[in-house]
Amino acid sequence: MLFRRGIIRDEYELTSELIQRPGSGGDLPQSGEFNPFPVARRVNSFQSVAMDDDMEGGNLGLYQERLRTFPNMRSKPYTPLIFRLLMRINSRVLLVLLLFGLGALFYIGASTSPIIVFVYSVCISSFLVSIYLAKWVLSKDEGPPEMVQISEAIRDGAEGFFRTQYGTISKMAGLLALVILSIYLLRSTTPQQEASGIGRATSAYITVASFLLGALCSGVAGYVGMWVSVRANVRVSSAARRSAREALQIAVRAGGFSALVVVGMAVIGIAILYATFYVWLGVDSTSAMKVTDLPLLLVGYGFGASFVALFAQLGGGIYTKAADVGADLVGKVEQGIPEDDPRNPAVIADLVGDNVGDCAARGADLFESIAAEIISAMILGGTMAQRCKIEDPSGFILFPLVVHSFDLVISSVGIFSIRNTRESGVISVLEDPMAILEKGYSVTIFLAVLTFGLSTRWMLYTEQAPTAWLNFALCGLVGIITAYIFVWITKYYTDYKHEPVRTLALASSTGHGTNIIAGVSLGLESTALPVLVISVSIISAFWLGRTSGLVDESGSPTGGLFGTAVATMGMLSTAAYVLTMDMFGPIADNAGGIVEMSQQPESVREITDVLDAVGNTTKATTKGFAIGSAALASFLLFSAYMDEVGSFAHVPFHQVDIAIPEVFVGGLLGSMLIFLFSAWACSAVGRSAQEVVNEVRRQFIERPGIMEYKEKPDYGRCVSIVASASLREMIKPGALAIISPIVVGIVFRVLGYYTDQPLLGAKVVASMLMFATVSGILMALFLNTAGGAWDNAKKYIETGALGGKGSDCHKAAVTGDTVGDPFKDTAGPSIHVLIKMLATITLVMAPIFL
Amino acid sequence: MLFRRGIIRDEYELTSELIQRPGSGGDLPQSGEFNPFPVARRVNSFQSVAMDDDMEGGNLGLYQERLRTFPNMRSKPYTPLIFRLLMRINSRVLLVLLLFGLGALFYIGASTSPIIVFVYSVCISSFLVSIYLAKWVLSKDEGPPEMVQISEAIRDGAEGFFRTQYGTISKMAGLLALVILSIYLLRSTTPQQEASGIGRATSAYITVASFLLGALCSGVAGYVGMWVSVRANVRVSSAARRSAREALQIAVRAGGFSALVVVGMAVIGIAILYATFYVWLGVDSTSAMKVTDLPLLLVGYGFGASFVALFAQLGGGIYTKAADVGADLVGKVEQGIPEDDPRNPAVIADLVGDNVGDCAARGADLFESIAAEIISAMILGGTMAQRCKIEDPSGFILFPLVVHSFDLVISSVGIFSIRNTRESGVISVLEDPMAILEKGYSVTIFLAVLTFGLSTRWMLYTEQAPTAWLNFALCGLVGIITAYIFVWITKYYTDYKHEPVRTLALASSTGHGTNIIAGVSLGLESTALPVLVISVSIISAFWLGRTSGLVDESGSPTGGLFGTAVATMGMLSTAAYVLTMDMFGPIADNAGGIVEMSQQPESVREITDVLDAVGNTTKATTKGFAIGSAALASFLLFSAYMDEVGSFAHVPFHQVDIAIPEVFVGGLLGSMLIFLFSAWACSAVGRSAQEVVNEVRRQFIERPGIMEYKEKPDYGRCVSIVASASLREMIKPGALAIISPIVVGIVFRVLGYYTDQPLLGAKVVASMLMFATVSGILMALFLNTAGGAWDNAKKYIETGALGGKGSDCHKAAVTGDTVGDPFKDTAGPSIHVLIKMLATITLVMAPIFL
Repeated sequence: MLFRRGIIRDEYELTSELIQRPGSGGDLPQSGEFNPFPVARRVNSFQSVAMDDDMEGGNLGLYQERLRTFPNMRSKPYTPLIFRLLMRINSRVLLVLLLFGLGALFYIGASTSPIIVFVYSVCISSFLVSIYLAKWVLSKDEGPPEMVQISEAIRDGAEGFFRTQYGTISKMAGLLALVILSIYLLRSTTPQQEASGIGRATSAYITVASFLLGALCSGVAGYVGMWVSVRANVRVSSAARRSAREALQIAVRAGGFSALVVVGMAVIGIAILYATFYVWLGVDSTSAMKVTDLPLLLVGYGFGASFVALFAQLGGGIYTKAADVGADLVGKVEQGIPEDDPRNPAVIADLVGDNVGDCAARGADLFESIAAEIISAMILGGTMAQRCKIEDPSGFILFPLVVHSFDLVISSVGIFSIRNTRESGVISVLEDPMAILEKGYSVTIFLAVLTFGLSTRWMLYTEQAPTAWLNFALCGLVGIITAYIFVWITKYYTDYKHEPVRTLALASSTGHGTNIIAGVSLGLESTALPVLVISVSIISAFWLGRTSGLVDESGSPTGGLFGTAVATMGMLSTAAYVLTMDMFGPIADNAGGIVEMSQQPESVREITDVLDAVGNTTKATTKGFAIGSAALASFLLFSAYMDEVGSFAHVPFHQVDIAIPEVFVGGLLGSMLIFLFSAWACSAVGRSAQEVVNEVRRQFIERPGIMEYKEKPDYGRCVSIVASASLREMIKPGALAIISPIVVGIVFRVLGYYTDQPLLGAKVVASMLMFATVSGILMALFLNTAGGAWDNAKKYIETGALGGKGSDCHKAAVTGDTVGDPFKDTAGPSIHVLIKMLATITLVMAPIFL
Repeated sequence: MLFRRGIIRDEYELTSELIQRPGSGGDLPQSGEFNPFPVARRVNSFQSVAMDDDMEGGNLGLYQERLRTFPNMRSKPYTPLIFRLLMRINSRVLLVLLLFGLGALFYIGASTSPIIVFVYSVCISSFLVSIYLAKWVLSKDEGPPEMVQISEAIRDGAEGFFRTQYGTISKMAGLLALVILSIYLLRSTTPQQEASGIGRATSAYITVASFLLGALCSGVAGYVGMWVSVRANVRVSSAARRSAREALQIAVRAGGFSALVVVGMAVIGIAILYATFYVWLGVDSTSAMKVTDLPLLLVGYGFGASFVALFAQLGGGIYTKAADVGADLVGKVEQGIPEDDPRNPAVIADLVGDNVGDCAARGADLFESIAAEIISAMILGGTMAQRCKIEDPSGFILFPLVVHSFDLVISSVGIFSIRNTRESGVISVLEDPMAILEKGYSVTIFLAVLTFGLSTRWMLYTEQAPTAWLNFALCGLVGIITAYIFVWITKYYTDYKHEPVRTLALASSTGHGTNIIAGVSLGLESTALPVLVISVSIISAFWLGRTSGLVDESGSPTGGLFGTAVATMGMLSTAAYVLTMDMFGPIADNAGGIVEMSQQPESVREITDVLDAVGNTTKATTKGFAIGSAALASFLLFSAYMDEVGSFAHVPFHQVDIAIPEVFVGGLLGSMLIFLFSAWACSAVGRSAQEVVNEVRRQFIERPGIMEYKEKPDYGRCVSIVASASLREMIKPGALAIISPIVVGIVFRVLGYYTDQPLLGAKVVASMLMFATVSGILMALFLNTAGGAWDNAKKYIETGALGGKGSDCHKAAVTGDTVGDPFKDTAGPSIHVLIKMLATITLVMAPIFL
């Protein structure tokens, strides 16, 4: 007992020490509100639970024991402070306040542009739809008590970790806000700003306010993603006892809820900021700033979102995979027990991980993708409209908001197109859930093509170039087709119906080593086709834009970059539906875990297994989709950065010449950043997983009864170890990503000053950004695809191929799956976020590089 | 028998089919002179050897059997055609011819520059030294007959493979020469060439002749590396029975022989070409071409060298690692027998692989490194001298040849500084061989600093900038220090005395999965420090050069790039000694294998084990050295490319702006090329290894007596499988590397033509080259370091740590080692070559991108 306490105390100290290091958390409370290990504390009482040695695995005994599995893991339901405050207020007052707020919102919107009013209306309607979806999901039954208990343990673990993680993140965000504030108070202003009378202080407050709002919204997006998944999982499990179709529908609608909230919040947040700044700064009135410069003020929002998303993805990714790898290595490989078996002490941590890693993190990731893409497209639209002297530029600026408003509408249609069949109550697994989801996707894509054409005609028609909208509609089509091909390529490389995964499975038959070599090769090779597709789409969208007929004063075509921006929007024009399919994955995974742990009959497991497998595919394809859009979006953000630098430096900044040694070195450093970041993300998982492995081994040795169901494993201790490790480990890679572009920019700015090379800092950062983007795209593709392929090669063998479960071939495949876990769920997705975070941080920090 | 014959026939057909595909080998003989499997044929008679079932491992029986192990594996000694022709000529005639040739050489040299005469003299002296070293090595005894037999089997396998491989390569080179010839006959000439009267035809013949000479010399360099190693290995084994020091000395001198030949041939080849062109074209006489343009004519030599090196490295790398992985996976992991155990059917193939993979390929690799670096530095020196209007530019142009001449001298001193101790005859293992080698390295480095300073003062002193030579000497020092730090970093990450490998070993204790995750992270992380070092050295050398006082007509400083070039030369100024240490590795490895296979006493094995471990470290550090110099050299080649394009296009070409979408796409494609190339290189090993695994497993199943020494394994069949597979598999990645820059250049040239963007093809290729270089450096560092660390983590465990040999931890470490094999010995070194091959191919093919 003493020994164990000792370990826990050491971990506490180690964690707080490490959290404090990056400078943000010096004031992190050692206990109290942001207790990092709420679960760890509670579960120490576990050890006093009496063990019934005489149960001998009898069915009744097992059932009774299951009922008592988590007696002490329930905490008081946690309600965030803000809700507690709101609940104290009279509901009528609240309603009045809400209506008043809405009224103000619409008033400001109407003063800005009717388009903003349209965007508001669509977003608020989609929030109402999402509330309906949430109510519908919550109205479903939670199943028998043993399921509820497991679900509650998962919920507690997830919410406890979320609180602590976001507590840390919010402190770091606060510190960073101060840094940004001081930079902006000290920087010079642009000529445009001077002309429009925006002083340093205003500009500083605007940027910091955008940053904090972006961070807050991203946090809420993450919370919503997790909130619904920890509640939907048990309802899916319960429904699986009745009907496969109903289970599918619950999972889809739960995913749809958070997808609509995430996308809607990204859109409405930017719309509110835009309208507020528009009215506050008196844009377009005489001698004020121009509307085409307004989008540049929003970059803080994108940076806030990507800052939070980065840590959310890192922390969540490390959590989920450390638990998963740890559980698999001892459970599956050493002890030979199945996945999610209740005897495995790390199983609850694994299930918690699905929620904090996949749901919360993916919500924040997509939120940030959409926000960054909208803002960069708005900047480019504004720049182009200004160059072409278009009379009413608001169409070009607000176009992305309209596209995503339609996204909300068509994705809702897609979500509702997945209905329960009439014969509910009959267990039917014959339908292929993937086919159902893809049918919904086809509906959404079809509508996306229509609405995209409609939006381009509505927003981008200008008398200067009457057919330009048609060219841009084609750009959008390029984007939609690119998204489709990306999804197809990802499926080809990760689905075991196709050659690559089968070859990988075959390589497992000659041992662990050849399995890993084949997986690494497969992942490296899988970068080729997506890069070719992205190359073709960048160039063709650029040329469609360039030949759109939009020309600047000197008559040279200017629409090229905006064409690429429109293609990116086309790619993301079904984002809400894609996010729904993605969120479906971890919910189904969790439901499967609950079914397995509560030892339901084989038929129920079959249903959740099928749903889980489909979820794996949708998760993989979403990653392909995310990296494709990141690739396109980063090229936009890069152009926006050059505009921003040019505007601050009072000189045109249109070239990044890599033949200059310093600029080349910047590129070298940018690519290296990706490698180092991936290294730290993977090793964080490796180290944390080793802790889990040691703990699980220890439990199996010290409590030999676990294997015969005679003793209860100490689930809480694993939860606590993983939570502590992932909070500790997320700091290093995250800090690297944020600090290195700033350091490089400042160092080369100073070097440029002494060697008389103007703008050297900005140029080197630009090259760093470009090389990091290219390497990041390739590395993320490699990591995601290799991970997905290993996972499915294992699943293929588990279907009975090449010796099936338990064979040597299967063991080798499990090793591959283990290696793939941090690749595909920690490092890979973190790189998506990293790429965009780098683009937004350079945008926000641009003033200090000059 | 029929069944086995059937397989062999299938492989024949498959191989010839695949070799024929790239278009070069349609005329490859199915049998006869270039018989791809000379060993396979012979060893089929193996099965008729009677088995003595009653030997039961008795010592005498074993010994007798060992004598009969390879009765039919000896082929007639093979002498290349050219030697056979020479031997028919009267020796006096030969001598006269030789003297006449030498006289002509020196006459042409003297007409060019006294510096050339100096270079000739040093090179020829070093050839004499190397002949002395070879004689000294060959004068050592070959040990008992069982050693000789094993050694002869290895030699036959290696020479058979070398013949077939270089037969294929030479046919491809011939085809490529025709392509180059037709391109140059159709291209436009530069204004300089027109002025000097060099027509298209002359320029075409010059380029093709350089290409073929480069290819030929590279082939000879590879052959020499292998020739000595297959003869030295058994002599080292034999000497290890007497004295550790003597064994070390033999291995070092054998390595020194090939190092001197390789470096000397690179230097003298370029010197001869330079002098011949100088005299032939009447350089610097009235109205002829300028001496500063002469180095551009040599690029064909570099391309020829890198072309051959690429295929040598790919074929050899796949061969050695397919055999190694296959042998380890079944032998070590499944059957638990030690490395190089005579019971393992793949053991001879593994030992053959060390020679064709490490010795032959590394010789070609280093030859190509030095050639490319000398030529690019000559081009840059010429350009700078021309811009600065230096009166006698030959000092700047010929500087690299002088540096490498001194390299030959000081490395010889370093090699001879490793002497036999007086008490030879006494077995002494107490000395650390690494310390001895490092002492020699210190001597060489010390001399390098001195001679480098001397050469800069001699060659680079100019009255226009009297202190410039001092700045360039400092650049050289930067290079030498960079090399030293690189070696140190590589050691830190791959030596088990340090933290990283110990952490990796610890990760093995939690299973195969965590071992792989930790190794991948270690490899990715290890890219950071080298990149920082390279960045600092590029920038500081550039600035030392820039501030050297050399200015062009308009007074702006021009020495920057030449400063980087001098730093590269500084880095390579001890190349011959480094290559010696590198060649030492596979010779020691082979010697260890022979000792193990001939079952020598424990004390002998201990000596070769220590030498083998040291060889592993020197091999790893050489790779760090090679990649560092490749990183610096490629930046030079890139600048040379821009000069070349500018000169052809009649417009200045100084910028590569990655903000242009097509140029960015070029970068994306360049990075992707590295990933795809690595994928194909690794999967080639994986696939070939799987064939070996299946064969070895089959032999163990069909001949259960092998494990009890009662039956002989069929070594020849493994040799044949590996040879066939590696010839087949080297084509795909090699063709990718050569074809893709050409295709990209032509496609974007056409696109640029239709979209009215001049020089688009050349720009996109430049960006492709830069991004490929950056990604290549990082990928190669990752692959080399991860592989080395896995290897040494396994060795660390084998010293008894964490459970020692045979433990689960060791098994996990062996998996890591297996994965690391293709990383560090196939893909990684191939990328070094690839980077420089890309740079030289774009230089040579530049005319078709315009």
